[in-house]
This record gives sequence, structure tokens and C-alpha cells, in this order.
Amino acid sequence: MLTAENRAQIAHLIQQEISQQSPGPLTLKEAKHLAALAEQKAKAIGVPIVISIADTEGQQILFHRMTSSLPASAQLATDKAHTAASFRMSTHELGLLAQPGGMLFGVQANNGGRTVLFGGGVPVRRNGVVVGAIGVSGGTADEDMLIADHALYIFLEHAGRCPEEG
Amino acid sequence: MLTAENRAQIAHLIQQEISQQSPGPLTLKEAKHLAALAEQKAKAIGVPIVISIADTEGQQILFHRMTSSLPASAQLATDKAHTAASFRMSTHELGLLAQPGGMLFGVQANNGGRTVLFGGGVPVRRNGVVVGAIGVSGGTADEDMLIADHALYIFLEHAGRCPEEG
Amino acid sequence: MLTAENRAQIAHLIQQEISQQSPGPLTLKEAKHLAALAEQKAKAIGVPIVISIADTEGQQILFHRMTSSLPASAQLATDKAHTAASFRMSTHELGLLAQPGGMLFGVQANNGGRTVLFGGGVPVRRNGVVVGAIGVSGGTADEDMLIADHALYIFLEHAGRCPEEG
Amino acid sequence: MLTAENRAQIAHLIQQEISQQSPGPLTLKEAKHLAALAEQKAKAIGVPIVISIADTEGQQILFHRMTSSLPASAQLATDKAHTAASFRMSTHELGLLAQPGGMLFGVQANNGGRTVLFGGGVPVRRNGVVVGAIGVSGGTADEDMLIADHALYIFLEHAGRCPEEG
Repeated sequence: MLTAENRAQIAHLIQQEISQQSPGPLTLKEAKHLAALAEQKAKAIGVPIVISIADTEGQQILFHRMTSSLPASAQLATDKAHTAASFRMSTHELGLLAQPGGMLFGVQANNGGRTVLFGGGVPVRRNGVVVGAIGVSGGTADEDMLIADHALYIFLEHAGRCPEEG
Repeated sequence: MLTAENRAQIAHLIQQEISQQSPGPLTLKEAKHLAALAEQKAKAIGVPIVISIADTEGQQILFHRMTSSLPASAQLATDKAHTAASFRMSTHELGLLAQPGGMLFGVQANNGGRTVLFGGGVPVRRNGVVVGAIGVSGGTADEDMLIADHALYIFLEHAGRCPEEG
Repeated sequence: MLTAENRAQIAHLIQQEISQQSPGPLTLKEAKHLAALAEQKAKAIGVPIVISIADTEGQQILFHRMTSSLPASAQLATDKAHTAASFRMSTHELGLLAQPGGMLFGVQANNGGRTVLFGGGVPVRRNGVVVGAIGVSGGTADEDMLIADHALYIFLEHAGRCPEEG
Repeated sequence: MLTAENRAQIAHLIQQEISQQSPGPLTLKEAKHLAALAEQKAKAIGVPIVISIADTEGQQILFHRMTSSLPASAQLATDKAHTAASFRMSTHELGLLAQPGGMLFGVQANNGGRTVLFGGGVPVRRNGVVVGAIGVSGGTADEDMLIADHALYIFLEHAGRCPEEG
């Protein structure tokens, strides 16, 4: 017969297994952490940005607009996070597929015009599964990508996961 | 004078002739059959998809979203079926006409942004007449096309029609 | 002192001058005539079409959808007439300006997605002033242009005006 | 101890410093001046235009539609001002970045289709800070740019600022 301790250990193992198979959604607390890391980097390079964090379906769970950031960035950051979650792909990669002659040419006209084709939107993965996405807008596309990638790198490292696996 | 039997035979012949000239619309039962064939193929190649079936005017009559399919695919599958019915042409063929310098350049910006230019939307024909369309999204454009074409092929074969005539 | 006859003559001359300077709007009667000419040509070449006639501001004043015409053509014909009136230019000419690197690149994304860049929309002119536009959709862009141009040619000839001046 | 006069002088200096750091918004009176200058130039070159002035967030504060201007220009002028303020960049410059292969390819499909990629929208700056934007539409893109640039040049000169610093 199993002791109470045995049962607790087994329950813990099952829980671990389940959480690895279907990773939990990105929490608001985690989203705040990601946003803080992005804002820190944005300040360091002197670029006021808008940050949006979306859940696995592309719905927004956090929105931060830094003072003096570009007005166009409010919608663009939101839609970058939405795009990266919806396509489970960075906005930069999607943009390469959507060029004239590309596999997804014309895709930016679909889905209500919310699909962004330039850098700054990146999916967040746990155990290879997309659990949300971050969208950054405010600088050049290269600066936005740098900030999003940097925030995600530190975030995954802090969570004890190697970003490459993320 | 015609007997009752004669009349019944004539009525039957007229009915046949009419149904050949104006083929009946795609029924929900047929749509379910098409969707089942597409889902079967999607599982076989390991790609969760969204399937949409539209009537001859492009209005949706069936929508199936497989678990874990890409969030962006919900609207894309619907709009692929809508596009294929509305233009009586596969989305892949339409995409070729809409490239820069092409006959329909810019068309994806029209009709409320519902026009999809990449593979996965295919019209369903009876006696050469478009009676609806199938839209598949979830994999690469090539995978979506493969699944849609495969489902349509089996569907038409099962209906005793050669797909080439379809 | 002027006689009543003198006055009438002068009033007539002024009226003529004014009507030349600001030509009257396209009437519904004229729109019906234009549509009938387009339908006639469409039947002659075996292409069921949708015809839309817009006033000088691009607002629709007539819409005819021929049986069996392409579902996508309902909005496209309407928007071709709207585009030709709004830009006072044929949709074909506008399309040339909107190619990558062109003067109006990207314009199809503006104005609510109603701007069509391929042939079939043509402005109607009186004394060089745009008084409305015709939009045709249903065949290839070349067929749509042929039908619209043909209808306009006969319409202006019938009105005692040389189409080239139109 | 400071006299009342000292205090007033110091307060004045602080006020000056603050106003240089955060320049006041574009007033309606200034917008009217800018519009009058644009209309004057438009008449001089014989091109009826639509003028829109937006605030620093891209919200419209003035809209003037000259008689006989192009119907399409009403929305285009408004959206040119909106674009120039939202991106803090002229619409012409943005258009260069949005070509196929460019850093912002596809951007015109985002932000509700309000982003214009051709000349005629220019930000208005005070001490290097964008305080609003002017949008001009009605002629060719080159004519629209000429009119907007001319109006802005005279406006800044009149305000005692060198346009190059603007």
C-alpha cells in the first residue's frame, strides 16, 4: 500500500509530466517581467517603445506605452504580438515569406490588416510550445527586434531554460 | 394519351436534364464528407488544420477547427473558401495573377481584405459548374493545397465523377 | 432697350455657357442607357458581368448583376466605378502608378480598401469634366475594359459627342 | 534675498527653458495659417487640393477641401497628416522603407489602412520635436509634396525659425 508520502511524490511526478506536455499559459506576472526587461533595454539604447504581450491565441494580456513613443507604435506593437502568436513565427520570418513571389504573398491584407511583416514580434515558447508572444515597436525594425530578443533571452535564462530550446 | 407511367418517365427525364444544367448546391452532408476527408489527410501528415466549406456565393456552410491548429488559420481557412468560391478559381491561381505587374495586382486589398492569394482554397465543381469551395489552412501553403486537393479528389471519385471533369 | 426676344436670347446664351462650364450630373436615365450597352456587349462576348455606375463623387447610382456573374464581381464592379470617379482616372491607369516603385505605391491599402487597380473602371466626362464613372467586373481585366470602353464609346457617340473629347 | 523683480526674471527663464524642452502643441490658429499658405500655393500652380492638419498624435485639427478637388483626396489628405504625425516622418520617406524587400514592407496594410506611402504628408517640428503634421492631396504626389513643403517653409520662416532646424 502507498504511503501518503508516496502518493505526494507520484502526484508531483504526474503534475510535472503534464506541465511538460501542455505548458501553462503565460501569466500576467511573467508578462510584466518580460515588459520590464524590454523597457530596460529600450532605455539603455535610448528608444522609447510600446510593448504588447499576447496569449497563445494572440489576445493581448499586457500593453505598456513608454512616454514619447511613436504614435504609430501603439497599434503596431499590439499587432506584432498578435501576429507572432497567431502564426507561431516571428514577424521578421513571416515578412520573408510574404515578399512578391513568396509562399505567403498578400497575407498582410488578410485577417483584418493586423498581420505585421517586419521585425519586433516574437513568440514565447515553453518546451517548444508557443504560450504567447511579445511585440515591440518604437525604433527601427532592427532596434525593435534587438529589444524583443534581448528581453526574451533574459526571461528564459531567468526561468532556468536555455533560450535556444525556448 | 400518356399513361401515368409515361408521365412519370418524362418527369424523371426533365428532372435529370435540369439537374445537369443547374447542379444542386453543395449540401451540409457533402460538406461534412469533404471535411472528414481533409481531416483524415491532415492527421496522416501530422498537420492540425482549420477547414471551411463555402456555398457557391462564398458563404460559409461548415467550419471545423482541429485542436492545436494555428490561430491565424481560423480566418484564413474561411477566407480561402470564400475566395475560391467568389473568384471560381483556386487561391493559388489567383495569387499568380496578383503579383506586381500581374493582371489583378492589388486585388487582395479589395473585398474587405478577405481575398487570400496562396494555396489551400479550391472550388468544388459539378458538371463544370462551381457549387461551393473548400478552404484549408494550418500547414505550409503546399501542405494546405495537398490536403484540399486530396479531399476533393476522393470526394469526387466517391460521387462517381472523374475529378478531372469535376 | 432690350426686347423680350433679346432677353430670351441672352438668357439662352448664358444658360448654354453655364452648362458648358459645369456639366450636369449623370442622370439615372443615362446610367440605364450605359448599363444596357455594357450588358449587350457582355452577352455578345459571352461574359456575365456586374455593372455599377457612380456619380461624380463616386457614390453608386446604378447596380446591375447579371445572372451567373462572378460573386467577387459585385463589390469589385462597385469599387471600380468608385475608384474611377474618386481618382478621375481609369482603374487601369491607376494600377500602373501603384506598382512597386511607382508614384502611388501602396494606394490600394488606403480609402477603406475600395481602390481597384485593374481594368474595368472608367470615368465618364462631359466637356472634359468627370460627371460619373462606370465599373465593369466579371470577365478577365481585358474583357471588363473592352466592355466598359465599348459602352462608353456608343454612349458618347449617341449623345452627339466625339468619344475622344469625352 | 531675491526681490520680486528677481523672482519674475527667474520664473520667466524657467518658463522659456521648459517651453524649449517641451514645445507647445500646434494651435488651431497656426493650423489655419499653414492651410492658408498651402491653399495660396495650390491656387498659384492651378491644383485644387484637400489640406488636413493633425496634432502630435495624428488626430485631425483642421480639414479644408477646395472646390473641385479630387474626391479620393478627402481621405488621402487626412491620412497623410495622420501618417506623418504617427510615424514622425514624411509619407514620402516612409514609402521608400515600405517597398518590397524594404525595412517596413507591408506596413500600409496595418493601422486600419490609414498609412499613406506617397508624398504630401510632412511632420511639423518645433525645436526638433514633432508637434503635428500637414497632409496635402489633389495633384500628383510631386505637386502635393511641393505644396506641403512650401507651406511649411513659409510658416517656419514667419515664426522666426529656420526651416532646416524645424
